[in-house]
Amino acid sequence: MKGIRQLAEHLGISIGTVSRALNGKPDVNEETRQRVLAAAEELGYVANQSGRSLRQGETKVIGLMIESSMESVENADNFFLGVTSGLQSVFARHKLDLIMLPCPSDEDPHEYLKRIVARHIVDAMIISNTQRIDRRIDLLSRAKIPFVAVGRSLSPGNFPWIDLDFEGVAERAVDRLVARGHRRIAITAPSSEVNLGYVFLESYRRALARHGIAFDPSLVIRVKSSEQGGYQAAHELLLLEERPTAVILIYELMAIGLYRRLMESGVMPGRDLAVIGFRDAPRARFLNPSLSCFRMSLYDLGVALGQTLLANVPAYREFYPDAGRNVVWPLELVPGESDAFHVGAMV
Amino acid sequence: MKGIRQLAEHLGISIGTVSRALNGKPDVNEETRQRVLAAAEELGYVANQSGRSLRQGETKVIGLMIESSMESVENADNFFLGVTSGLQSVFARHKLDLIMLPCPSDEDPHEYLKRIVARHIVDAMIISNTQRIDRRIDLLSRAKIPFVAVGRSLSPGNFPWIDLDFEGVAERAVDRLVARGHRRIAITAPSSEVNLGYVFLESYRRALARHGIAFDPSLVIRVKSSEQGGYQAAHELLLLEERPTAVILIYELMAIGLYRRLMESGVMPGRDLAVIGFRDAPRARFLNPSLSCFRMSLYDLGVALGQTLLANVPAYREFYPDAGRNVVWPLELVPGESDAFHVGAMV
Repeated sequence: MKGIRQLAEHLGISIGTVSRALNGKPDVNEETRQRVLAAAEELGYVANQSGRSLRQGETKVIGLMIESSMESVENADNFFLGVTSGLQSVFARHKLDLIMLPCPSDEDPHEYLKRIVARHIVDAMIISNTQRIDRRIDLLSRAKIPFVAVGRSLSPGNFPWIDLDFEGVAERAVDRLVARGHRRIAITAPSSEVNLGYVFLESYRRALARHGIAFDPSLVIRVKSSEQGGYQAAHELLLLEERPTAVILIYELMAIGLYRRLMESGVMPGRDLAVIGFRDAPRARFLNPSLSCFRMSLYDLGVALGQTLLANVPAYREFYPDAGRNVVWPLELVPGESDAFHVGAMV
Repeated sequence: MKGIRQLAEHLGISIGTVSRALNGKPDVNEETRQRVLAAAEELGYVANQSGRSLRQGETKVIGLMIESSMESVENADNFFLGVTSGLQSVFARHKLDLIMLPCPSDEDPHEYLKRIVARHIVDAMIISNTQRIDRRIDLLSRAKIPFVAVGRSLSPGNFPWIDLDFEGVAERAVDRLVARGHRRIAITAPSSEVNLGYVFLESYRRALARHGIAFDPSLVIRVKSSEQGGYQAAHELLLLEERPTAVILIYELMAIGLYRRLMESGVMPGRDLAVIGFRDAPRARFLNPSLSCFRMSLYDLGVALGQTLLANVPAYREFYPDAGRNVVWPLELVPGESDAFHVGAMV
């Protein structure tokens, strides 16, 4: 690839003049400027971004860290591909590029991010899959790299985050089920330390308490957030001595595996067991009976994440005076047939 | 973030000594080295990668360019997330990091890549969605950035690529249908200039000719590669004066929309119309009757892409003497119920 030196040699003029011409400085005459630009085009000149980044301390690149384990891939529902378009619509205004950073499944996310930070390829970061204690928050704060987290954390620091409304989902699911006569309501929870699991479970407990229903730890089923996890959850539910009449799922694709395992045992969702799913997902739209679940716009979430992030980057702060710093993102109930019965009718 | 200067000031020793200690040079005594490393850890020192990249001309980062249009997102089946794990398994051996570069839907892919190249954040590239004439190939060749393309192109140059076996899929699909008595076999083709559309259609024509079946342009249905495209394809098929008895699909998720539209008209796939899909996709596994389609390992494809790429990067060439330069990637037939009838039985 041609650099500025080759360009100067080719044109027989100084590197300084070529540089000033390329950077649109006024002290270069128009004819020279045109010659330089034409030669740059012809020789395939590309500006040395590393040099620029070293001088200006910015790369104009924003990183979005995601997981790339085989499990997350097979189960993926394109959550982050959906968010990407919204993010880019914000970043494009400022000529910023978004790159996705897939952390390999066999690598510690903190170590991975440490290496990415050291590579100096991003000006700012979006981190996801936020853990209850998440060392990446400390790492980015210390490295003075602006960031926004998808998900809250107990890690100290007043950092910007946007989180889905897990409280609201758990509460509305419990209210809806109780209104239909359910008292034994099971819930799935992730087997990992991801923070959303704690939030979801706490809200479920509080909602039960509000209705005077005692919390029963045996009704909390810890499984992987995957289709297979849903299958496992149904398996465990069926083994319970006193079977619950309803179950609330924490992850969108769990419903698929859960339905399969239930039907294998002749237990019909929406008739023998009420099911409320989490997020509306394309793959779950085939379920029969249709799944009661919650809906949100991934694009809009991407826009909000982008704005919240840039509101925390000094160079762009002024453009986003109204961006929220900590936002609980609402989801809208999509009623289906999977919980369309009253327990009274069964007794 | 702390740089080497701050570290040297904090320790009260020279920048040169700190640098030699951090880089494991032998002329630094062990005690000093330990002090430097401890301080680096404590102060959150990160090596200035921009400086390093400027000097060494490498970033240790490989880019994978993907599309991120809303359409591709809603229809996405995680093809590239699946390939990612395989790529990373190769890159991890050499401490290389993979980043995903989502080209916004409203941007020309060539212009996008030009900017990414100018940002100097990648040492090498994987490009996908290869077009019949693809200017990105020329751009990367001129910029001397090693790359591998997912998909062939008519663009000049002996560049490395791996492509799915579209010929094999089209041929085997036609053979299979002809063996079951079909003569009027429709095919879907992409509405874009993506090269695979040409390859697929050419192979279909050749296979028909081999069986002495005249090519009928009205049986080529050009639609978007999406679920909606499949719906549209079924709609157009149903409007044909002499309806075909079979259809071959070029994209995995088309089958979902196609089934829906057919069933709306009381036309049953696998009974009234034989359907052969392209790649086996999680979302298509719910189809009833089950879809005859083709299967491949995304992980293995990722490994092959990674090896082919590094075989073209001077620093890593020696590790991959046997990597293929141009590979047609095989797919395996997964027979389903969607084409399990003989046309003779209908006549």
